[in-house]
Amino acid sequence: MSNYKAGPLLSNIQVPSDLRKLKQEDLPQVADELREYIIDVISEIGNSHFGASLGVVEMTVALHYVFNTPEDQLVWDVGHQAYGHKILTGRRDVFHTNRLRGGISGFPKRSESNYDTFGVGHSSTSISAALGMAIANNYKGKKDTQHIAVIGDGAMTAGLAFEGLNHAGFEKDANLLVILNDNCMSIDPNVGALKDYLTDITTSHTYNKMKDEVWNLLGKLSKFGPDARTVVSKVSHALKGSLLKQSNLFESFNFRYFGPIDGHDVIGMAKVMEDLKQIPGPKILHCITKKGKGYKFSEQGNPTQWHAPGVFNKETGEIVKVIPTSPQPPKYQDVFGHTIVELAEKNDKIMGITPAMPSGSSLNIMMKAMPDRSFDVGIAEQHAVTFSAGLATQGMVPFCNIYSSFMQRAYDQVIHDVALQNLNVVFCLDRAGFAGADGATHHGAYDIAYMRCVPNMIVAAPMNESELRNLMYTAQQENMGPFCIRYPRGQGVMPDWKTPMKAVKVGTGRKVTAGEDIAILSIGHHGNYVQEAIELLKDSGASVAHYDMRFVKPLDEQMLHEVFGKFEKVITVEDGCIMGGMGSAVLEFMADHQYQAHIVRLGIPDEYIHHGTQKELYKDAGYDTNSIVKKVIEMLGIENQNTELLKNVAAG
Amino acid sequence: MSNYKAGPLLSNIQVPSDLRKLKQEDLPQVADELREYIIDVISEIGNSHFGASLGVVEMTVALHYVFNTPEDQLVWDVGHQAYGHKILTGRRDVFHTNRLRGGISGFPKRSESNYDTFGVGHSSTSISAALGMAIANNYKGKKDTQHIAVIGDGAMTAGLAFEGLNHAGFEKDANLLVILNDNCMSIDPNVGALKDYLTDITTSHTYNKMKDEVWNLLGKLSKFGPDARTVVSKVSHALKGSLLKQSNLFESFNFRYFGPIDGHDVIGMAKVMEDLKQIPGPKILHCITKKGKGYKFSEQGNPTQWHAPGVFNKETGEIVKVIPTSPQPPKYQDVFGHTIVELAEKNDKIMGITPAMPSGSSLNIMMKAMPDRSFDVGIAEQHAVTFSAGLATQGMVPFCNIYSSFMQRAYDQVIHDVALQNLNVVFCLDRAGFAGADGATHHGAYDIAYMRCVPNMIVAAPMNESELRNLMYTAQQENMGPFCIRYPRGQGVMPDWKTPMKAVKVGTGRKVTAGEDIAILSIGHHGNYVQEAIELLKDSGASVAHYDMRFVKPLDEQMLHEVFGKFEKVITVEDGCIMGGMGSAVLEFMADHQYQAHIVRLGIPDEYIHHGTQKELYKDAGYDTNSIVKKVIEMLGIENQNTELLKNVAAG
Repeated sequence: MSNYKAGPLLSNIQVPSDLRKLKQEDLPQVADELREYIIDVISEIGNSHFGASLGVVEMTVALHYVFNTPEDQLVWDVGHQAYGHKILTGRRDVFHTNRLRGGISGFPKRSESNYDTFGVGHSSTSISAALGMAIANNYKGKKDTQHIAVIGDGAMTAGLAFEGLNHAGFEKDANLLVILNDNCMSIDPNVGALKDYLTDITTSHTYNKMKDEVWNLLGKLSKFGPDARTVVSKVSHALKGSLLKQSNLFESFNFRYFGPIDGHDVIGMAKVMEDLKQIPGPKILHCITKKGKGYKFSEQGNPTQWHAPGVFNKETGEIVKVIPTSPQPPKYQDVFGHTIVELAEKNDKIMGITPAMPSGSSLNIMMKAMPDRSFDVGIAEQHAVTFSAGLATQGMVPFCNIYSSFMQRAYDQVIHDVALQNLNVVFCLDRAGFAGADGATHHGAYDIAYMRCVPNMIVAAPMNESELRNLMYTAQQENMGPFCIRYPRGQGVMPDWKTPMKAVKVGTGRKVTAGEDIAILSIGHHGNYVQEAIELLKDSGASVAHYDMRFVKPLDEQMLHEVFGKFEKVITVEDGCIMGGMGSAVLEFMADHQYQAHIVRLGIPDEYIHHGTQKELYKDAGYDTNSIVKKVIEMLGIENQNTELLKNVAAG
Repeated sequence: MSNYKAGPLLSNIQVPSDLRKLKQEDLPQVADELREYIIDVISEIGNSHFGASLGVVEMTVALHYVFNTPEDQLVWDVGHQAYGHKILTGRRDVFHTNRLRGGISGFPKRSESNYDTFGVGHSSTSISAALGMAIANNYKGKKDTQHIAVIGDGAMTAGLAFEGLNHAGFEKDANLLVILNDNCMSIDPNVGALKDYLTDITTSHTYNKMKDEVWNLLGKLSKFGPDARTVVSKVSHALKGSLLKQSNLFESFNFRYFGPIDGHDVIGMAKVMEDLKQIPGPKILHCITKKGKGYKFSEQGNPTQWHAPGVFNKETGEIVKVIPTSPQPPKYQDVFGHTIVELAEKNDKIMGITPAMPSGSSLNIMMKAMPDRSFDVGIAEQHAVTFSAGLATQGMVPFCNIYSSFMQRAYDQVIHDVALQNLNVVFCLDRAGFAGADGATHHGAYDIAYMRCVPNMIVAAPMNESELRNLMYTAQQENMGPFCIRYPRGQGVMPDWKTPMKAVKVGTGRKVTAGEDIAILSIGHHGNYVQEAIELLKDSGASVAHYDMRFVKPLDEQMLHEVFGKFEKVITVEDGCIMGGMGSAVLEFMADHQYQAHIVRLGIPDEYIHHGTQKELYKDAGYDTNSIVKKVIEMLGIENQNTELLKNVAAG
């Protein structure tokens, strides 16, 4: 049970049917209480998204009030704005476990609730998914079922959303309502032509006038009872005529467009949604909202900062920052952000590209320093990669920074537009490996497997900050071809990270620790946990060698000949899927050279690992420091009793 | 040298600068000669695209006449319409080698010509690529360089094109001209809301009126000499006002929209393009063309048939069909097409989805038989998959048929929307393995590697038609989860293919041939070549076992225990990349169970293999029948002289 107290109305709402017993005039109070509850919990537990859910509190209440969830299918795009939805759909008492290991997910998830109709996390899937649901239910004869996709203006820029619009506009019988939640933001301010367009129509007098006409017409519908459909048909004809005079983007896709309306007027929204239920076919309702609405500090503050502020003092708005007592290593993303500027100052061919992650990738450092050479292209990973390819054809060296799990969106562009043409595009894959609290949708689990099978592609990962800098330096040299550098979310290990840069020979690893009994081959930051394991094992009698592969492709064959010429027992460690990953590349080398050894691969197993801290997840997946120690002990047959330390490790 | 004779003007055009010496009034004759040349060559060599290039003959001539290629950057979207471009840019004499092994590619290719600015094959990349080029050249101070993307209305439906529009509309200084080649076709007739929209604006009187006004204004520009830019600025203001009255889709993206104009009026187009050169910023020119234009049989015939007709009689329009003397095995795609209908007749949950490949996938059979249960969603692979996921949430069993190389476009949707939610979507990956004449862009090389690392995903491939039917039957059973079935382009092996269907136990292979000395593990259709190899080896003394894996995931562990318990020499054969492919899955099994064997993996090596027939490419890549025979001989140390046959094979 939760220690958090809900207001008098909210505390009586376990599921949306409770909400639907209330009078319309009670809805503003429900919204206020819901907002208060979100602020109470999130300010204390931290580790959560914030501004997005505050911005849709009224919309959430209106949706569950008007629509018959879970029979009606409500799809939240991205889903980090769905906290209010979770609280209203049976999860108020566990809401304080949000994003903790074993707690509820920070995103809608089908396995968590039947109100969560579609698992989300990545953006722009909602129109396609809801259209699929609508067509299925139409086919099944459930023609009254409503299907609602709630999508932000940021998510609307991704190609998938347009593909969905293009198909939906052709399915004239689909009961599909798209709610465009227009707050002018992705995590960072939204960009692109579409943003300007939405601003234009929002401020246009013609539109506001038309809006009034539309609502007047619709307002009369309720009187007509069972004959409503006939009337709607007439009305919609009238609307069509009126709308065509000022044809708009969504009308171009055969959607009926309504709005813009105030997304914080819960009663107004409920009325409009009630009316729209009566209108068949694909339609879009444009709602203007404000991220962080209703909490003065987030309303007045920097929305990017309040996207996921961590723990904060509810009364003062002060975001709690733990001040470290000693110098801390930087985040890898910041090493990237500062280093690209340093490199670009010397190499005028370098450009920086991010699909809507200026702050998440720290490319914002370059965007500030070199605005003409750095581009936020919006949520558009495919375009980010092909655009980079275009730049590269003219001799530029684009650094295209995309989170590992989002790079899945641009896989064809990586193969077809970059690698096949052997263009020098540098892919920086942030959040490679376990992403932590964001969970399964966001883990960068597969990039080693899906990148290394692509011809021409170089795949590398740095063990520390200095290595990241050296790899970035290496990647921007003349005629380098496609070059992937993956690194994890979070901090590195070097407080003094700003080391001089030098070129690394492509396809060379490093022997970090010499040893005799067993070799551990690691890739990337996880080599530091191997080092910790070796330290723990120092009194065990085990002589453990450690090689940092640095490149998954091309492999350092000379180093591997040394390893397999010498060792009969080998462990590979990677923060990525073991099926097809770095360890498998090593197996291929062994087979090609007919080496034989007892080899164990540690990494992400062939299952979906959910949310938790990165360290918790490494442990769950069996490749944290202790797991490495235990595997060495097991493979070498060392007695567990050697030292107290080992006993503790073995006990886990 | 070519035996084909070009007309008097065309024969003097080696490169576009020769074209630019001609007078404008000569252009129609150049276009006629170019069209004639294409018809002459393609009708005889066959094996090529046809209708698309015929449709853009005038556009091609106008583009190279007006723009200063190759300095100006011309990007052809998809590129199967670029034959005229190839002929005008130094490749007339090798045009008859089109799509043959060692000959020119059927698509623009950077390594082939510096007039081919961007390698294509997959659709909808041109806006993003050309924008990258434009921004790079702007940055380099080459502000007069023009960048032109020629994109079809079919390709415009893909999300990537919209992502490009959204970014380009924001880059007001980018010298970008998008030419919308509107012929209402993909390979099959184009679909979706956008298609309707383009038809609407093409037939709208307002637009035609506006068009005339626009051209009248622009026509006056030429008189103004050096002051033209100032004038243009004024004119474009006037245009802006005029256009805003009928704001259109492309204007919503901040593009200036011009058109629609007749895409077969070469002089008119040249004039318009000349004028558009003067107008800075992103702009779109809407041209109406007809696929197959100028050749009466393709103009009057079925455009899908004339997309790539093979050899035909130029005079009579008769398409040459080789009539086989004995019953032939069907194409795998047709087995799919007929079988899905058969299954859907019994299981009313089954639906069929194709992204713009009704004829290529043979889903058109179901679309005819069951129009309410089969969907062509346009060129929109991402949407096809997420839409399928939406259908599956409501209990449907969608069969989503996408060519292997195009499935790369939907990789994130496969992981995030289907597999993570363990939804029962059946992915049928046609054209898996070498695609043949389409070349490197179209080979389905990576799907085993990129699919098998995804948790929950079942990955299977049938060795023949009967197996394909059984796998399809298996995949549509209750609670099956995500299920991939890959099969190659072209024919199977069973003239009597319509065998009764039965369920296969997931994760079981089959022992096809017993043997003692060496085991060959194959996946998919290539098992038939293994059988051929065993037949060739029958007098060699080698006793070769053959196992059809059938499933790459889950592996048949029981069968593999038998294999590695018995054999010290093993060959794996797959029509897919060996890096991370089926052979690597077998290596992982060996490592996990500490088996040791001499294992050799045959398949697509880690490089881009270009075009040729499938058999030529299998040989080039070292996994055709003879290569398998040779590998067995080598691994078993058999004397080559055993039989005459073996000598021939070894020489082979």
